[in-house]
Amino acid sequence: MSAEPSSRLQAAHPVPDPLELKRWIREIPDFPAKGILFRDITPLLQNGPVFRGAIAALAQRHQGARPDAVVGIESRGLIVGTALAYELGVGIVPVRKAGKLPHKTFSATYTLEYGQDMLEIHQDALPRGARVVLADDLLATGGTMAATINLVEQCGARVEEILFLIELTALKGRRRLAPHPVRVLVQY
Amino acid sequence: MSAEPSSRLQAAHPVPDPLELKRWIREIPDFPAKGILFRDITPLLQNGPVFRGAIAALAQRHQGARPDAVVGIESRGLIVGTALAYELGVGIVPVRKAGKLPHKTFSATYTLEYGQDMLEIHQDALPRGARVVLADDLLATGGTMAATINLVEQCGARVEEILFLIELTALKGRRRLAPHPVRVLVQY
Repeated sequence: MSAEPSSRLQAAHPVPDPLELKRWIREIPDFPAKGILFRDITPLLQNGPVFRGAIAALAQRHQGARPDAVVGIESRGLIVGTALAYELGVGIVPVRKAGKLPHKTFSATYTLEYGQDMLEIHQDALPRGARVVLADDLLATGGTMAATINLVEQCGARVEEILFLIELTALKGRRRLAPHPVRVLVQY
Repeated sequence: MSAEPSSRLQAAHPVPDPLELKRWIREIPDFPAKGILFRDITPLLQNGPVFRGAIAALAQRHQGARPDAVVGIESRGLIVGTALAYELGVGIVPVRKAGKLPHKTFSATYTLEYGQDMLEIHQDALPRGARVVLADDLLATGGTMAATINLVEQCGARVEEILFLIELTALKGRRRLAPHPVRVLVQY
């Protein structure tokens, strides 16, 4: 995290110390599969002041020149994205698994450990030229976020920044999202 | 963090007229199955001021005595619930489909057209005696919300109110949720 907050914002929402935030992220061994250490953010989400502080810190750089919308990825990314959108006073655009959105969609596939999956966005979700912020809870390999960039670009919109609560740096997902700027609060 | 921004928001966003809100809810025939008229709230979610106005109106009654948390149901209920939680400055507790939450869970089943499904909540999501608000996008038969009440009661918490954007009154879901108070913005 690089940008220095304005003093007014700092007073209202002090930027949380990443070490302090880590106290609210729980490690669950062997979930969802043997050998995977899952970072569970539900303790962070369930603490109102900690959650607000984290979201306000992620949103800070966009308070001056607000994006046109925040795009959040089902399911945890909808929590992070909705809170960001609400903080900024802009709309939340859901990116969902195939078949969940009822209107005409664009789609993009991404690779999973065991095959492929598909994400969708409504074709009329974003006007051409819209400047948008993308949000998810955690950056691992970057596959679902890369597919989301693809969806946003199919709409003719522009990615301003990509925000995550957590980055697993060893997986180098940030490289895959280049040249789009990525901002995170907590790294492991 | 203290409760501050809500009165300012309320001044900026008076309670929306339900007829005005209906302009932002789109009808999709035959989704997800033939003969079903789907109420698509994505146009409402994507309009920042309309979304904020709707959430502020739903949250209004709780500004004085805030609940301890908002419980939102995967997936659209997480959008509505997160925005409500953010507006009120409290935590968001996710209720998710079986197998998605990583820690120890309570579970409850509900009936679908074609069988049964299961919802879960983390066992430590709510302290005993917590007063909570439950949120989802739409009240139809009330099955998933009834299961969510069951989950909250397994935690030993108390349901203060149940909030929806939309109610399909012909399906009489409100009866199934009695005696808990239900509040909606738009009825069809």
